[in-house]
Amino acid sequence: MTRRWANGGTPAARREETPVVESGPEQTRRRIRDAAAHVLSVKGYAGFRVTAVAAIAEVQAPAIYYYWASRDELIEEVMWVGTAATRDHTAAALDALPSDTSAMDRLIAAVEAHLRHVLEMSDYSRAAIRNADQVPPSIRKRQIREENLYGELWRRLLYDLNRSGDMRVELDPYHAQMLILGALNWCSEWWDPRRSSVDTLVADAQSFVRGSIIAFPQPDRSRRRRAQA
Amino acid sequence: MTRRWANGGTPAARREETPVVESGPEQTRRRIRDAAAHVLSVKGYAGFRVTAVAAIAEVQAPAIYYYWASRDELIEEVMWVGTAATRDHTAAALDALPSDTSAMDRLIAAVEAHLRHVLEMSDYSRAAIRNADQVPPSIRKRQIREENLYGELWRRLLYDLNRSGDMRVELDPYHAQMLILGALNWCSEWWDPRRSSVDTLVADAQSFVRGSIIAFPQPDRSRRRRAQA
Repeated sequence: MTRRWANGGTPAARREETPVVESGPEQTRRRIRDAAAHVLSVKGYAGFRVTAVAAIAEVQAPAIYYYWASRDELIEEVMWVGTAATRDHTAAALDALPSDTSAMDRLIAAVEAHLRHVLEMSDYSRAAIRNADQVPPSIRKRQIREENLYGELWRRLLYDLNRSGDMRVELDPYHAQMLILGALNWCSEWWDPRRSSVDTLVADAQSFVRGSIIAFPQPDRSRRRRAQA
Repeated sequence: MTRRWANGGTPAARREETPVVESGPEQTRRRIRDAAAHVLSVKGYAGFRVTAVAAIAEVQAPAIYYYWASRDELIEEVMWVGTAATRDHTAAALDALPSDTSAMDRLIAAVEAHLRHVLEMSDYSRAAIRNADQVPPSIRKRQIREENLYGELWRRLLYDLNRSGDMRVELDPYHAQMLILGALNWCSEWWDPRRSSVDTLVADAQSFVRGSIIAFPQPDRSRRRRAQA
């Protein structure tokens, strides 16, 4: 289909959709939206053609208007849904932790949840990043709301970490938050599943982030711990 | 002129051009290219209009073709020149270091040089990132060559650090390299000069990167050292 999909760039699509019937309206809707995310990330807002989406999703172009009233409505959904899904995924991972989990371990769990989801939804991440300034403001409304809500989740993680005393005092928590998210988000631009596994990348990212902010740095033991588990 | 320029996003333009006559052909050429970088970052390749560039640069549209033979030639230059300039700047910073500088200190010096330049040329960085897949392959040729050359510089820094024993052995040097560059490059998306100074951000980024990869983590002393200097 495309280079990115062919090399396994969106394992989410495979994993989530393979076990169920692929011809239902929800599957078709998702297939069209995935195709739209890819086209938007590659062609940009001005170059986005519904016919290109239809060709990739293997549907007739008019079928798209069964699900979305307009080209802009489809684009609007692509712009915010990646952030919304990543936020849901990360929030659920944090909710599943024992209540006595330390602030550092919560942050490190969020690193894994965020990174896995960004890699699974890489076309959505790229589409949103690359078109943030290209789409009309009306299309950005829900995306901006999602970004703010998700930013709030991360601000809270860094705030709690800062209060716990496990974070280096001289680091501005907002700078730390954005440096972490930059390191993680950028992975969708360069990570090559033929070169290294998601698990290896996640373990390295966790080690990297932990060291980057920890107050009284100690040798990283996360791998050893994982190996024992 | 634009929000980004008005809030000091491209101090390079001010610093480099203010002392010399601003009306010469080189200054006009630079002004047009800066405007083209801005338009390309905001509108994307398909939405790029030479008339919009002319309006921002305050020249007549035909004047642009005095400097570039075509719209695509102008875009081609915007795509690679940001990386090339950042590479020159970082290489020069490294060359200026004493020959006995440790691998870690060389890396930390590169973090500063890279970050300062990315922030100064943020329109170029954004234009290149957002249009990497949008422009025809011919336009990407020199950009890809520059990216590879610059990637080579960073690979060398991480390779030397890895050999020095100052880097955590379990970290894949390539993963570390790309996580660092992601954290730094992303700064052009969120850094707000009204909220924090470049110097503060650079100091935080250096502390962040040092901790992220150091083998036997110790409390960061870079600030104290700087304060004593």
